[in-house]
Amino acid sequence: MKFLIVGDIIGKPGRKALKYYTISSPGTFDVLVVNVENSAGGFGINRKVYEELKAIGVDVMTSGNHIWDKKEVLEFVNTPDLLRPANYPEGVPGRGYGIYEKKGVKFAVINLMGRVFMDPNLENPFSTFDRIYEEIREETPIILVDFHAEATSEKTAFGIYVDGRASLVYGTHTHVPTADQVILKRGTGYVSDVGMSGCWYSAIGMKSEDVIRKFLTGLPQRFEVEEKEDVVFNGILAEIDESSGKCLRIERVQKYITREEFKEL
Amino acid sequence: MKFLIVGDIIGKPGRKALKYYTISSPGTFDVLVVNVENSAGGFGINRKVYEELKAIGVDVMTSGNHIWDKKEVLEFVNTPDLLRPANYPEGVPGRGYGIYEKKGVKFAVINLMGRVFMDPNLENPFSTFDRIYEEIREETPIILVDFHAEATSEKTAFGIYVDGRASLVYGTHTHVPTADQVILKRGTGYVSDVGMSGCWYSAIGMKSEDVIRKFLTGLPQRFEVEEKEDVVFNGILAEIDESSGKCLRIERVQKYITREEFKEL
Amino acid sequence: MKFLIVGDIIGKPGRKALKYYTISSPGTFDVLVVNVENSAGGFGINRKVYEELKAIGVDVMTSGNHIWDKKEVLEFVNTPDLLRPANYPEGVPGRGYGIYEKKGVKFAVINLMGRVFMDPNLENPFSTFDRIYEEIREETPIILVDFHAEATSEKTAFGIYVDGRASLVYGTHTHVPTADQVILKRGTGYVSDVGMSGCWYSAIGMKSEDVIRKFLTGLPQRFEVEEKEDVVFNGILAEIDESSGKCLRIERVQKYITREEFKEL
Amino acid sequence: MKFLIVGDIIGKPGRKALKYYTISSPGTFDVLVVNVENSAGGFGINRKVYEELKAIGVDVMTSGNHIWDKKEVLEFVNTPDLLRPANYPEGVPGRGYGIYEKKGVKFAVINLMGRVFMDPNLENPFSTFDRIYEEIREETPIILVDFHAEATSEKTAFGIYVDGRASLVYGTHTHVPTADQVILKRGTGYVSDVGMSGCWYSAIGMKSEDVIRKFLTGLPQRFEVEEKEDVVFNGILAEIDESSGKCLRIERVQKYITREEFKEL
Ligand SMILES: [Fe+2]
Ligand SMILES: [Fe+2]
Ligand SMILES: [Fe+2]
Ligand SMILES: [Fe+2]
Ligand SMILES: [Fe+2]
Ligand SMILES: [Fe+2]
Ligand SMILES: [Fe+2]
Ligand SMILES: [Fe+2]
Repeated sequence: MKFLIVGDIIGKPGRKALKYYTISSPGTFDVLVVNVENSAGGFGINRKVYEELKAIGVDVMTSGNHIWDKKEVLEFVNTPDLLRPANYPEGVPGRGYGIYEKKGVKFAVINLMGRVFMDPNLENPFSTFDRIYEEIREETPIILVDFHAEATSEKTAFGIYVDGRASLVYGTHTHVPTADQVILKRGTGYVSDVGMSGCWYSAIGMKSEDVIRKFLTGLPQRFEVEEKEDVVFNGILAEIDESSGKCLRIERVQKYITREEFKEL
Repeated sequence: MKFLIVGDIIGKPGRKALKYYTISSPGTFDVLVVNVENSAGGFGINRKVYEELKAIGVDVMTSGNHIWDKKEVLEFVNTPDLLRPANYPEGVPGRGYGIYEKKGVKFAVINLMGRVFMDPNLENPFSTFDRIYEEIREETPIILVDFHAEATSEKTAFGIYVDGRASLVYGTHTHVPTADQVILKRGTGYVSDVGMSGCWYSAIGMKSEDVIRKFLTGLPQRFEVEEKEDVVFNGILAEIDESSGKCLRIERVQKYITREEFKEL
Repeated sequence: MKFLIVGDIIGKPGRKALKYYTISSPGTFDVLVVNVENSAGGFGINRKVYEELKAIGVDVMTSGNHIWDKKEVLEFVNTPDLLRPANYPEGVPGRGYGIYEKKGVKFAVINLMGRVFMDPNLENPFSTFDRIYEEIREETPIILVDFHAEATSEKTAFGIYVDGRASLVYGTHTHVPTADQVILKRGTGYVSDVGMSGCWYSAIGMKSEDVIRKFLTGLPQRFEVEEKEDVVFNGILAEIDESSGKCLRIERVQKYITREEFKEL
Repeated sequence: MKFLIVGDIIGKPGRKALKYYTISSPGTFDVLVVNVENSAGGFGINRKVYEELKAIGVDVMTSGNHIWDKKEVLEFVNTPDLLRPANYPEGVPGRGYGIYEKKGVKFAVINLMGRVFMDPNLENPFSTFDRIYEEIREETPIILVDFHAEATSEKTAFGIYVDGRASLVYGTHTHVPTADQVILKRGTGYVSDVGMSGCWYSAIGMKSEDVIRKFLTGLPQRFEVEEKEDVVFNGILAEIDESSGKCLRIERVQKYITREEFKEL
């Protein structure tokens, strides 16, 4: 089964890039999983954007630290196809993993968040995976993990920790695609970060002048999505064996798109 | 002029990977610049390793936060072809940039370190660049920057900040290669991280079992270089126009090498 | 000359505590210096609060990381009696120190911010002090420093670093008063934190239920000033020798005030 | 029952200060609880120091992030009167709380560690308290908590969170005593930090010149215990009602001791 995995999509340019790519690459994937934590104006998701993404054909949405940015999300965060990191403490709204079915094949998606350089108020993502894995491994061998984290040590260690148990571990959050996609020794596909989709001449999707001003002055800045530059679409195409859950193939997908090409969308 | 840029090389496997690649790719580059902060046993550099790297043909060595790990480095940190980040405060031993010449062409290398999630005791890398740029732009238009940093926001913002002034900005420190190499709008070649060279089935070059134990228990661990796995060599090949200093081409170089292939080294 | 130093005052309860204390302790001090970074609703300062504090008799206002919380502050941040940390980079609005005069005596106040666990985009507070000290030591030997910082290592090290040069170094920012007030060996009065003024049954001045929920869930919370509890006033009374600038006396001032006592204000 | 609580004791000067105080204040307390994470040369504890502290009369030892600094500790960390933070993950050696008895009275001591600005690999200290409290509340109403943490927001929020359940919550780790000791509304004694015992003209117990050099240069420094200056002893005296477990009295104990007075020890 072929999964197209998309990392953090940044506002409108990110959503357009996703639409452009999926339209122009029909039949190349069976399931579409997208990280939506920056999909609405760069901060969180709202219902309008959720609907737009469903219309594009997104099967499962994952997220991360920005999932709560729009208050509105609390109204629909329990929707089964929208995940927030599973290692939020008990009692937090929403769900951290789900079992889905498409074309007659069951698969699981788990969303986790790292703790290094991030929010220390989360539960341990390593032991949280262990717990969820116990619950779902009877249901399906196809297990995807969006590991939303900053530190490469935490990401690579996690990948090896679950090697042979997860089908695919892919990082999100840094907004920069990494060139380390690989099939680990026991069959888990791994990449440290899928990277963002949005305007590429930017500071991880946001207007660079504001971010530069932050570093030059230390003054708080209001960050806005860069919308006037050309766009890059970043994704990962992973083929998973349906009976064993092993990763058969993991490939980077990257498409630079000019504003001209965008006009029609 | 063609530069082969190598990121953090991790201990003996990293040095071997460097040797293997340079031997097997003769004539593909004019200048070799390597980040050596993890070259000696994963922590810093000593004189023996320095000599070994010179024998391999390294022209300029850059570094980062780990440069001071081996006390011995203080004896030779003033060597002109060894750099430590230029934004250490005044009075710190060593130099942060240099102007070099090879095949009759002058070029500058600047080493800087980011501050986000790193040591807050450094000077501002953005304004430090401005100051050094004023000093060296009359000497040569070819200016390379090793920006040793954790946060992708700081790295991408820095790249755009110096676009049109530097010839090439490449990140190091995360030990994971990024797939965002690009020529920015005003001619600066950019990549967020060159990635490490060392054993790839590891936690950023170190034995994964120790790093995993750290994340499972919170107990301090002694990290050691992974030496028993196959190796990856990561680099960036950048061609810079000698008269304008613009980047003409930037390409990722990546070579997976099995232990078998290593035996002869 | 006697200085009453007040740390972070938290919203309306903090302003009332200040008013209450100054009214009930007439003649006990010559100069009143107050940290105002949380004075308006817990976040920053606005013009109305600025005027209210002037009416209470505040001579000099210092601040810290929260100074920019209310946009409005940019309109009056250049007022000479309002300081923001002096180690913001060049070009940032406002001033970081000033020389004032009262009862015919000149004195200087310097505002600095630490970097450990705080904003890494600031200049070095140690060398910034050196620079300012060079500029002002001819003007007056009476030099007060509000060192707004988190880490006790940075605060205590700074105190000893300027021992014999500053008259008084007092910490702010943690909102908790420390019991280490002392005259250092070369005559500088020192205390790690003055502590906040505001409702004491709270999480550093804010409603505790929100802060607790943050630690229990990791979810973002909207923090509000606690206004329904009894109040504590925390300050430092320091007597400085006018000719030598040495600290003669440093004493903690602490007054718990019930809501009953508050009614009249 | 009267508890003398001592925070981080820093190396030999700290141990001497403890000895001096306990000898010179006989009969003022029933139980002696000391945080030993910096007791051996400033880093961790070894068996020799453990024996020395038992000889002084320490009943229960608590600790924090530095507990593992001396490898030797693993040999005796399971000793019932030595605690490490209870919110280390399952499987970590040692114990995080204990129930003790003295003069026929049972009491519990719990050691916890905060996560803000500290190690993110720990479990939630708030919910860990809940769990332990369930286990021990039948055994004794007298429950002391050493909350080893950096951030005052986390400390004050925790105090209020357990108000009415714990008898006493006292902070350690910052090495600076706080002047906010209070009995909370439901009967829990609280203080944000007990403060260290050691040489006071120092950077939180360590030689100030090394810590200052760190802040001036960013270079790694080897920190050593300051041993040549006069000493301060910091403690908290808390009286707990034996039947209700409520705190009846909480007082700061602080004694400055000159080197002269020390000679006899
Ligand atoms: Fe994101
Ligand atoms: Fe994120
Ligand atoms: Fe490195
Ligand atoms: Fe590094
Ligand atoms: Fe504050
Ligand atoms: Fe502050
Ligand atoms: Fe300590
Ligand atoms: Fe500690």
